[in-house]
Amino acid sequence: MRINSGRLLARIAALAEVSPISGGGNCRLALTPEDGHGRDLVVSWMKDLDLRVSIDVVGNVIGTWECAPGSPVMTGSHIDTVRTGGRFDGTYGVLAGLEVIQCLQDAGITPKRPLSVGFFTNEEGARFAPDMLGSLVYVGGMAVEDALDIVAIDGAQLADELEAIGYRGSHPCPGPTPHAFVELHVEQGPVLQSIGRRLGTVTGVQGISWQEVTINGQSNHAGTTPMSMRKDPAYVAGRIIVFLRELATRYGAPQVCTVGKVDLVPNLVNVVPATATLTVDIRNTDELTLQKAEHEFAEFLSHLADEENVTISSRQLARFEPVTFDERVVDIIDSVCASFAVAPHQLPSGAGHDAQMFARVCPTAMIFVPSINGISHNPAELTDDEDLVLGCDVLLHTMLRLANTSFTEENSR
Amino acid sequence: MRINSGRLLARIAALAEVSPISGGGNCRLALTPEDGHGRDLVVSWMKDLDLRVSIDVVGNVIGTWECAPGSPVMTGSHIDTVRTGGRFDGTYGVLAGLEVIQCLQDAGITPKRPLSVGFFTNEEGARFAPDMLGSLVYVGGMAVEDALDIVAIDGAQLADELEAIGYRGSHPCPGPTPHAFVELHVEQGPVLQSIGRRLGTVTGVQGISWQEVTINGQSNHAGTTPMSMRKDPAYVAGRIIVFLRELATRYGAPQVCTVGKVDLVPNLVNVVPATATLTVDIRNTDELTLQKAEHEFAEFLSHLADEENVTISSRQLARFEPVTFDERVVDIIDSVCASFAVAPHQLPSGAGHDAQMFARVCPTAMIFVPSINGISHNPAELTDDEDLVLGCDVLLHTMLRLANTSFTEENSR
Repeated sequence: MRINSGRLLARIAALAEVSPISGGGNCRLALTPEDGHGRDLVVSWMKDLDLRVSIDVVGNVIGTWECAPGSPVMTGSHIDTVRTGGRFDGTYGVLAGLEVIQCLQDAGITPKRPLSVGFFTNEEGARFAPDMLGSLVYVGGMAVEDALDIVAIDGAQLADELEAIGYRGSHPCPGPTPHAFVELHVEQGPVLQSIGRRLGTVTGVQGISWQEVTINGQSNHAGTTPMSMRKDPAYVAGRIIVFLRELATRYGAPQVCTVGKVDLVPNLVNVVPATATLTVDIRNTDELTLQKAEHEFAEFLSHLADEENVTISSRQLARFEPVTFDERVVDIIDSVCASFAVAPHQLPSGAGHDAQMFARVCPTAMIFVPSINGISHNPAELTDDEDLVLGCDVLLHTMLRLANTSFTEENSR
Repeated sequence: MRINSGRLLARIAALAEVSPISGGGNCRLALTPEDGHGRDLVVSWMKDLDLRVSIDVVGNVIGTWECAPGSPVMTGSHIDTVRTGGRFDGTYGVLAGLEVIQCLQDAGITPKRPLSVGFFTNEEGARFAPDMLGSLVYVGGMAVEDALDIVAIDGAQLADELEAIGYRGSHPCPGPTPHAFVELHVEQGPVLQSIGRRLGTVTGVQGISWQEVTINGQSNHAGTTPMSMRKDPAYVAGRIIVFLRELATRYGAPQVCTVGKVDLVPNLVNVVPATATLTVDIRNTDELTLQKAEHEFAEFLSHLADEENVTISSRQLARFEPVTFDERVVDIIDSVCASFAVAPHQLPSGAGHDAQMFARVCPTAMIFVPSINGISHNPAELTDDEDLVLGCDVLLHTMLRLANTSFTEENSR
């Protein structure tokens, strides 16, 4: 049995019509009106398939095909994007889940358990911190009240923004524990393409450390202040950026460090800035190495503040330890791939995903399809249609196999 | 004869009430409604003194006391500020000019030539580039049409903004050539305070080179893109900032380099930016050294673009050669200082000033008073009241002496 490729690709194209940006991507920052329009479209498709749609208190939406008793096999991802997002990141996994259910309904095949497909609030973290917020709250990793109080980078409060787009639901969090969870996603990196593989079985997720660093110096006139008397936050920001590249290079792959956001005040050509605020994103698959990088960075900041006569403060925006997925789910994905005569490649994910939250409560793993040139968080994000269809086929058979598998406590760890 | 100190300080305090910001400074970016309110207040004071007020086509405002025939001795400066400006930068010189005229009127003393006091549009360059725009156009250094077409950092056009605040006047530019020009200003640097002098005679102005550098790289996912495959504009911006500090330190004083403005796109924690735009401010009192710094920086950018696989383009925002003031005016200021039993200190200005434009067309120099801790372009900008009053006394007697001095062609160069 194969999924309906035309229908899958048509839904991806239709959702990409909601808040398009030039270059073929989308801007649907979490809980903006644009995100609301995208949600409405996906919910309408869930209702077309007669799914039971539940919306919880932080806006996670789960559509369930109640074809059998028991806890469901769940798939899902997110439909929010970064400001300059692609059309596949997240949405592909959600729409593939719908296609899996519709395909089985059309074929008159009833799985042994309910099948659910969800999309989770603020996975990207581009508007609210932390990222993967919805799935984190779903599994009980953050109190609902704390989540509702979070303030966006534009000053809006999460609770108000849920209300404004009509997605402050009544279903409680933590939500019901699924039987198993599997997420299908584009790789967002260059590995699969570079080794010529069409499918990846994801064995875990990198640990992520996000912090916001604020540097306070002395605003002054750019022409009259001798270099030796400056307390220049822009210079300190420059040193931090250069240091992080040096650290990542020295540690070697898979260590990555990124400064993606820098804001100077007052940000004028002829004024030494008063303050600089920048974000630091540090990731590694190994928790101890990640801690070592964090520690070394903190030491550097301390020395730099002394050296440059500025004050530097740091605030943690998000911190997730590396995650290892369930070997049994990984094995099932591998064997489904083999049944399609496609060799999968086991790899860790460099990006955070909702699946890593579900890994805390139920057997979980992920399926990757290649991203052309590894480009993501960019309108140029692209995956070949054939790979999109193949990934959805693998999701279909993986979900059926998961519905037939009993995960007993004895073999769960 | 001495000026009325209470009246001078009261006018400074009253103008500081227009668009105050916390910390005691002001935000009156050029041609905003706030700048308009400040202009209206100063013009009302000009009219109180029965000055003839002329507004020219780029919004420069000149108040002239037509007490005698001939071309006027002119003083003046600006009342626009940077976004986080102090209350003395520019405004002090304008209001001191008013006080000089009122003091002479009160005393019944009629100078041998008319006295003018002006304030010039967009001296700071914090909203429109280049800085010192109004005085540049006044002396014929830029065509009026070119000036009117300039677009602000907020997208507004200069002509429209003049119109909106009612300062698109009818007097033509270039404007009438003054007999001589003298500008009184706070130092905005730490030199006078550090050597314990209360007055500075300014012998010239540093050359200024402003450019906007744009780096185009490859926006991508911060977690999945190996360091070796990145084309990261934020990293390149960091390298530029660190390089410019190193260059300025290597050249030694008076070389200064500043990056005051950095903008990343999309500016998000988990996205390697697509572009970075930053401003570079390079100054030196020696034109050849300034050219050497510009050349070395351009070479660095070229190597860096190759090394980091990005494209870098650079656009000149402003370029002024170092200026040498008229020795005869400098001598007059020195001798007036001596008559107050105050030893002046001759120094170049690290900042650009309207006086440097007038130096192109008439005998010109400047008077500085100390800035406490050298702080400027900052709400904490401060000068002792006694120094403000002393500076205005020196301006008064300098203008009287200039009105009595004949500058013949023979000794003008």
